[in-house]
Formats: sequence, C-alpha cells, structure tokens
Amino acid sequence: MLCFRIENGKLKATTKPLPKLRPGWTLVRVRLAGICNTDVELLHGYYNFRGVKWLGWRVCGEINISCKALGRHPVCNFCRRGLKTHCQHRTVLGIISHPGAYAEYLTLPLENLHAVPDGVSDEQAVFVEPLAAACEILEQVDVRRLRKAAVLGDGKLAQLIARVLHTAIPRVVMYGKHEKKLKLGSRIGIATKRVHGDAGDLKRVQERFRLVVEATGSPTGLALALQMTEPCGTLVLKSTFHGTAAVETWPIVVNEITVIGSRCGPFGKAIALLHSGKVDPTSLITRTYPLSDAPAAIAFAQQPGVMKVLLKA
Amino acid sequence: MLCFRIENGKLKATTKPLPKLRPGWTLVRVRLAGICNTDVELLHGYYNFRGVKWLGWRVCGEINISCKALGRHPVCNFCRRGLKTHCQHRTVLGIISHPGAYAEYLTLPLENLHAVPDGVSDEQAVFVEPLAAACEILEQVDVRRLRKAAVLGDGKLAQLIARVLHTAIPRVVMYGKHEKKLKLGSRIGIATKRVHGDAGDLKRVQERFRLVVEATGSPTGLALALQMTEPCGTLVLKSTFHGTAAVETWPIVVNEITVIGSRCGPFGKAIALLHSGKVDPTSLITRTYPLSDAPAAIAFAQQPGVMKVLLKA
Repeated sequence: MLCFRIENGKLKATTKPLPKLRPGWTLVRVRLAGICNTDVELLHGYYNFRGVKWLGWRVCGEINISCKALGRHPVCNFCRRGLKTHCQHRTVLGIISHPGAYAEYLTLPLENLHAVPDGVSDEQAVFVEPLAAACEILEQVDVRRLRKAAVLGDGKLAQLIARVLHTAIPRVVMYGKHEKKLKLGSRIGIATKRVHGDAGDLKRVQERFRLVVEATGSPTGLALALQMTEPCGTLVLKSTFHGTAAVETWPIVVNEITVIGSRCGPFGKAIALLHSGKVDPTSLITRTYPLSDAPAAIAFAQQPGVMKVLLKA
Repeated sequence: MLCFRIENGKLKATTKPLPKLRPGWTLVRVRLAGICNTDVELLHGYYNFRGVKWLGWRVCGEINISCKALGRHPVCNFCRRGLKTHCQHRTVLGIISHPGAYAEYLTLPLENLHAVPDGVSDEQAVFVEPLAAACEILEQVDVRRLRKAAVLGDGKLAQLIARVLHTAIPRVVMYGKHEKKLKLGSRIGIATKRVHGDAGDLKRVQERFRLVVEATGSPTGLALALQMTEPCGTLVLKSTFHGTAAVETWPIVVNEITVIGSRCGPFGKAIALLHSGKVDPTSLITRTYPLSDAPAAIAFAQQPGVMKVLLKA
C-alpha cells in the first residue's frame, strides 16, 4: 500500500505491505485524512515521530491506544480508572510509536473505533477527532449557567471550540488576528474581535469572562487569556506549542482562577453534534488533495490563511 | 495610639489618634499580631502599601473588606454571589487602602470578625488568617478519596497547608530545602523530602501525586510541582511571588492537569481546627517581640531559618 513517512522534516512516499493485526485489532481503509497542526509540528520534530498518520471514515478512530489493546495484563492504573487517553503505556496513532493516516490502510484496536452514521459525510467525519477535543471542554467545565465565553485564537481548533461552546452558551466571542478566519465564525453567529497577538492586546481587550479558552497555539496568548478570566473563573488551555511561556502566576492565585489543561475528548458527543447538524465544520475545509500529493498538501497547509486540508485516499 | 508605617522600605513608629468608625464597623484592640511573608513583601514595595497592618485576638478578623461594608449600594456582582474575598471594590487590611495590625488598635467591619473560643490561645489565634488560607484548598478540591498529597515548600504557609491536608489525607509529603524546617513537619507525622530548589530536583523527585500544592514562594517551584502532578491531577498554587516564571505549559494540556489558584479561606474552619486540637501551629513560632520593637521584629523575620514572628501589643 501507499503511505507517507517523515524523513528529514519532509513527507516521503513509500510502499509497504498491509500491516499485520493483533487480536482485537482491525484493518481500516483510509477514505479521507485531515492535516492538523500536530502533523505540521511532527514534521518539525515534535515527539521525534517517524511513521505514517491517520484519520478514517465510515468508522472514525480514537488515536490513543491503551495498554489493554497492546496486550498488557494487568492494565495500568489509568486504564483501570477509565482514563484511557492517559494510559501510562499508551501509543498514539500518528504521534507516538504507531503509524498514522497518511496511508491507504491503517490498523487500530476495535475498541478505538466509532461508527459514523449515514447522515454524516466523509468531509464532516474527518473532523470527529479534533471536534471531540473541543467537546472535552464540556466534560471538564459545567457551562450550563454561563451566558458568555471567550475563545482566543481563530485557527482550526479554535473554530471548532467556538462552535461547540456556542451549542450551549448564548454569547461566544472569538478573539483572533485574521479578518478572514474570524468571518468563518461571525457568519454563523459567533461574535468576533480582532486582536494583534502582541502585548498591546492587554490594554485593548476590556471584556472579562467566567470561561476563557486559550487556543492560539502560541505562547503570547496565555497572558491575555489570564487577564480576560474573571476572579474565580476558568481558563481552559488547548495550545500545545513547545518551549516555555513567561507567565505571571500571581494573578492565578490572587484571583483564584482555575486553569484546566484539555486534550482528547469524547468521540460519541462529536459524532452526535455532526449528526444533529448543530455543528457543521465543512466551511473550514480549504482544499482536498489526493493522498499521493501528501507532500504538496502539507506544504499548502502551512501557508498563511489556509484552514483544513484533507487527503483523499 | 502607637502604630507603625512603612516609609522607604522600613517600619517607622508613629502616634495616631484612635481611628474613626463607620456604621457597622468596630474598634479592635490588638493583642497579638503575626508577621507574614506578605508583610515582608509589602516592605519591599508589593502593592505600594503605605499604612499599618493587623491581626487580632479574642476576635480575629477577615482581611478583605467588601464594598457593602464600605457603604456601596448596590453591591458588586461578586459580593452578590457571595464571593466577598473577590469584591471588585475591596480594600484589604494591611495590604490595599486600609491600615493594618502593627498598631495598638485597628478598625474592621463587624461582618469581618469571628469570635475566638476560650480553648484557643492568643498564640494559636494569630494563625487563623493563614490557616484559613490553607483550609481554602479543602473548599476547592475534593480530597476525601485521596491517599496522599504533596506540599512543595517548608515555610510558614507550606507548614500550615501540610497540617491541614494531613487532617484529611493519610500520607502528606512536604518537599523543602531546609532540614530544620522539615523537622517541624516530620515530628508530627508529615513525611518530608529534602530538595535543592534547582533544576536538578526534576531528576531527583520521582514520586507522582494526584494533589500537589505549590507553596515555595519562588518561581522555581512551579516546574517541579507540574512534573509531580499525575495526569488528570490537581496542582494548587499558593505562591504569590511577583515577576514572571518560565513555564512549559504543554504538560498541563497533554496531562489534562487542573491548576487552581488559592488565596484567602474560611475562618470558621480554621478556628474549628485549632479548637479541636487537630492543628496546633504554635511550634512554628520562633520569637515574640513587643509591638514597640516592630522594626527589629520584621528584620529578624527575614533571617534564614526564622519561622513565625509575633508582635505583642
């Protein structure tokens, strides 16, 4: 089968035999794969990943592979507590020790798969994994009594987060640097505010929120996000940039802010949001490439203004 | 009355008439006042405080003075929600726009006062305010099912936090730099571990916890505290040093850690802990000075190895 490997910071086409299966695993034919920012970071050395990356269709698959699926017995403490995404021995499809979805086929444990209902298209289903990550916020924060919330960032994940929050919170304000990206939100009823991504934002942004989500993907977002969070409020961190951020931590203490790290989320909820039509992320797709053009696709995905880029196998 | 002001980074004795009272306020004669690290920071310019500082006895008083007590009507959103310690217009005894307890008398709104029961001594009651701050953690985190927790720091606040946590959690481990201070904990059943306060700690400290409290008062504690917190665990921040800390935030996201800022807490619980004998902080007192020697006392309080220093009016 055709698949792509990372070699010297570039995607390289290669042909491999179909992968072998463990008991309880299944072979998945890839119909459509999405390029996400983590893919781009992997290309630039994050986690030193060498392999092939995935996202599937008609089924979609959770990317965290638990020690149970890897044959460990007894399973680790986290798996026993039902926290499979934090399995101590986990591998992660396309990120840690497991090939990904830039391929014609991939393997996953059956327990990772979720059926995609007929009413949900390939182009919607390819968003299930990041949309589930956005839904994770609703698992972590009780948003039922909130009248408003802020999302910092206007990229792919920020857009999904704003859409998910807007299903539960009347006023969602997205703060971003890019007029065009902000319009993707304002068109569907999300309030938008232009910021510049510099220290001047701290003076310009006056509104305060009980819930703020930091999804800029950049170290500079954190100071603004903290300032925008009300005393006793909650700041959810979604950005996974590497390197250190210079943070003044005393406002967290004095204002008794809760900062919650948030990663992978519930696939079932994401699929339900797509199926009900409450969230439709297809307006975020900029272009679809054939799988064989993966190197051109990932180069295009890094151009300014480009949102979701897909690979069709 | 005799009281002390901060002038050019030093305490200066001065004589003032007794303070005037607003309706609903009361005059409190100071029997015993404690010197805390915030006092020392105020001396060095924190909040640009100019005034006199307090902690009382037979009554003890909450330091946050709400807009209601200041005569505002209607009260602010936070007071309406019962979050008086986050009042938008608050003044803070000895810190923001209100004289403190280094004086023979001070004033506070009646609503701020708590009676101290007979079984609780002056020397115990002077710890109610910081002990309440330690109790705040129990308000914010459900510790009932925890079998262990870690406290970073061996200073006054860290010692109180370790004692409060130990009333509810079987194994509490205090990580500190000072052999002598750690002994104050180990003597009463708190496990202790010596650390060096440098980057080497990150390699040396192997144990992981579902609950970690950072109370070192220094920017270097945060990285270690984050590393020690289990995935899905909780890190409580108590340190209010000024300046920025260089933080890698991606482990918060990847491990879905909850970071909770924690400041002032419930006086009632603190008084109850003292009254029941479950916490006795008097072993933390290094020396008591007469009020008139406040400048010498605050100089002594900054010497290495010195714990709580009190002022007797």
